[in-house]
Amino acid sequence: MASKGEEKPELVGSKQGIVSVTKAKHDQIVLVLRVVAFLATASATIVMGLNQETKTLLVGTIGTTPIRATLKAKFQHTPAFVFFVVANGLASVYNLVMLGVDVFGRKLDCKGLRLVIISILDMVIVAVVAAGASSAAFMAELGKNGNSHAKWNKICDKFESFCHQGGGALIPSFIALLLLLLISAISIITLHNQKLTSPHATTP
Amino acid sequence: MASKGEEKPELVGSKQGIVSVTKAKHDQIVLVLRVVAFLATASATIVMGLNQETKTLLVGTIGTTPIRATLKAKFQHTPAFVFFVVANGLASVYNLVMLGVDVFGRKLDCKGLRLVIISILDMVIVAVVAAGASSAAFMAELGKNGNSHAKWNKICDKFESFCHQGGGALIPSFIALLLLLLISAISIITLHNQKLTSPHATTP
Repeated sequence: MASKGEEKPELVGSKQGIVSVTKAKHDQIVLVLRVVAFLATASATIVMGLNQETKTLLVGTIGTTPIRATLKAKFQHTPAFVFFVVANGLASVYNLVMLGVDVFGRKLDCKGLRLVIISILDMVIVAVVAAGASSAAFMAELGKNGNSHAKWNKICDKFESFCHQGGGALIPSFIALLLLLLISAISIITLHNQKLTSPHATTP
Repeated sequence: MASKGEEKPELVGSKQGIVSVTKAKHDQIVLVLRVVAFLATASATIVMGLNQETKTLLVGTIGTTPIRATLKAKFQHTPAFVFFVVANGLASVYNLVMLGVDVFGRKLDCKGLRLVIISILDMVIVAVVAAGASSAAFMAELGKNGNSHAKWNKICDKFESFCHQGGGALIPSFIALLLLLLISAISIITLHNQKLTSPHATTP
């Protein structure tokens, strides 16, 4: 009985050791990915949120007097861009909170459900950012190329700077989406690995 | 030692029993949700994929002869709608495969990673459907209301049936999105619960 008693903790210990190292590695990777994802969504939010261009266009002449109109392109004029800002802003706040919890609240747990809750929230944020980025991308494509069937003219020939800045917001948002997908996948894998280290698992 | 030996299996047995019942319940719920999600994404794909309207409009007159133009509205004319069909089609195929695996391939497993793989794939499909549904929704909103700032006129006053059918495709897609979010959350919870029934967990 004594030998069995000695063997078991050794086995458990070695397995737990390996898994703990893996978990620590996963945690570090996720921490770095979250920082980069936060920077990406935050910059996407700011770049799109500050996107506006004012342009004075010649719209006609009365006699020899040119008639000019001042037009303004703002991200607020397009619902998809507003949603883009909200989605990326939400993802930024979420990742910031998660970073805070990761760094300062490692002991925070709710009935061992911490990882489950994080995995589910990660998945929801992936969906939100995917929706925001792709909606804005299709609207940007319309602004760039227009749609001859619907008689919607492109606007990027008139508002070049607005379109460039919009494109500049889309890139970090798609990078963030890839990072969030990765974070979510790692969360799920960590949840799977946790079964080897969990107190429920080792002492049933 | 004998009493300890008897106690342990009892405890493990009862816990495994409860968790097995919960897992079976989860499996049944996921099966039903997957069937409904499949029906929803499949109908969204078909309704949008068959969406087209031909309309003959009076565009002017030469003398007393009316000049008519035949216009066609097709989902293929809008990249966001094409993406919507692809995204919902992909989700339909995925859910059908998962249903097949659930019903006929329960024993299929790859190094105990079956649930991890399913959870990650579920999450990816949530992102794809979220992107497809929201992109199409913003494009539909543009078709319905137009955008006065960009001088894009609404087209739903001319192509009513096209717009109705497009809206009719969006609804099941958003229902499917909610169901897929739920399925994905249940996959993650099942993964968490699995640690209590896993052979690794009980015999470490």
